Amino acid sequence: MIDKKGILFILSGPSGVGKGTVRKALFDQATDLQYSISVTTRKPRNGEKHGVDYFFHEKEEVEKMIEQNKLLEWAEYVGNYYGTPREYVEETLDSGKDVFLEIEVQGALQVKDNFPEGVFIFLFPPSLEELKNRIINRGTESEDLVRNRLLAAKEEIEMMEAYDYVVVNDEVNHAVEKINSIVQAEHCNRERIAEEYKKALESDME
Amino acid sequence: MIDKKGILFILSGPSGVGKGTVRKALFDQATDLQYSISVTTRKPRNGEKHGVDYFFHEKEEVEKMIEQNKLLEWAEYVGNYYGTPREYVEETLDSGKDVFLEIEVQGALQVKDNFPEGVFIFLFPPSLEELKNRIINRGTESEDLVRNRLLAAKEEIEMMEAYDYVVVNDEVNHAVEKINSIVQAEHCNRERIAEEYKKALESDME
Repeated sequence: MIDKKGILFILSGPSGVGKGTVRKALFDQATDLQYSISVTTRKPRNGEKHGVDYFFHEKEEVEKMIEQNKLLEWAEYVGNYYGTPREYVEETLDSGKDVFLEIEVQGALQVKDNFPEGVFIFLFPPSLEELKNRIINRGTESEDLVRNRLLAAKEEIEMMEAYDYVVVNDEVNHAVEKINSIVQAEHCNRERIAEEYKKALESDME
Repeated sequence: MIDKKGILFILSGPSGVGKGTVRKALFDQATDLQYSISVTTRKPRNGEKHGVDYFFHEKEEVEKMIEQNKLLEWAEYVGNYYGTPREYVEETLDSGKDVFLEIEVQGALQVKDNFPEGVFIFLFPPSLEELKNRIINRGTESEDLVRNRLLAAKEEIEMMEAYDYVVVNDEVNHAVEKINSIVQAEHCNRERIAEEYKKALESDME
């Protein structure tokens, strides 16, 4: 009876917290979420497809998108642009599908500015000790680099205030379960749906 | 690591929508929710226990509780008082347990005034047609009474604005699943937990 619009969910959190692992576990299950496809200026690698893995564009095109505010967020990394195209996200939401974006804290804050109606989920380390271990266990980092990354992580945790939800990543499957609950609960959020329900009732009364 | 406080969940909705059935199905499952125990002035029936089925009190005691604002909501029904004791709810929440209250719309609005930090869930009929059928199928009602109850239900639906969530009762097990998701999501609600998380991190850094 009700014409449902999709919701944009953003998973973010300090570096080392395990965002990628949680996102992978979430998409390894059956899910109705659509993973957000980024634009990039880097060249396609073997087997990568335009519109599936990335939207591949020339540098000038992406710079024009940035200028025209057509990206919900963007960053430059090793000489290439990466960003989230607003049009793709909005078309997917309009088709009734939820979009899921996993991204660094700085990118999430850009999305928040450009798309405040998104649902922002902050992945939280079980403890600072654990976060430190995870950063160290990535291997290649020197002691100085570990200290810097831990300091950066603490600063990123301060950004928690901008988020709607906080999920502790104590165990990947717990975190995934909580994210799935947040997705379902947000589809029951009265502020999002009250208008649609009222319309449905009115047409019901005709 | 985190000292969790319970949350008060209130399930309400128009008469005939199936609140009692959904509540029963929710508690037939394994659940960590504590069903809210009411005070009443009616006499205990066979096998009913004080502090389990109800808190049984004398009329004067309940009137004193009303006067001293010790009830989150109350109503008189067939000559007896019924109400939700604030102290019992708060002690249960402090012990870390969630409390679940199923109640008519008028009672829910009283709770909202007295305990705005509760999470208010509105159970919504799949359609007005369906609501009418359910009211008729209760049996004993005359045509006039059905019309009046349907009108009352429409007015109650207007109260939806005061709620945090809207759950369609299309199928009891769907509604129960959504309520369970709302419970889990609210425990991740940043506004509720950010303070506790920050404290945990600070003690972590010592």
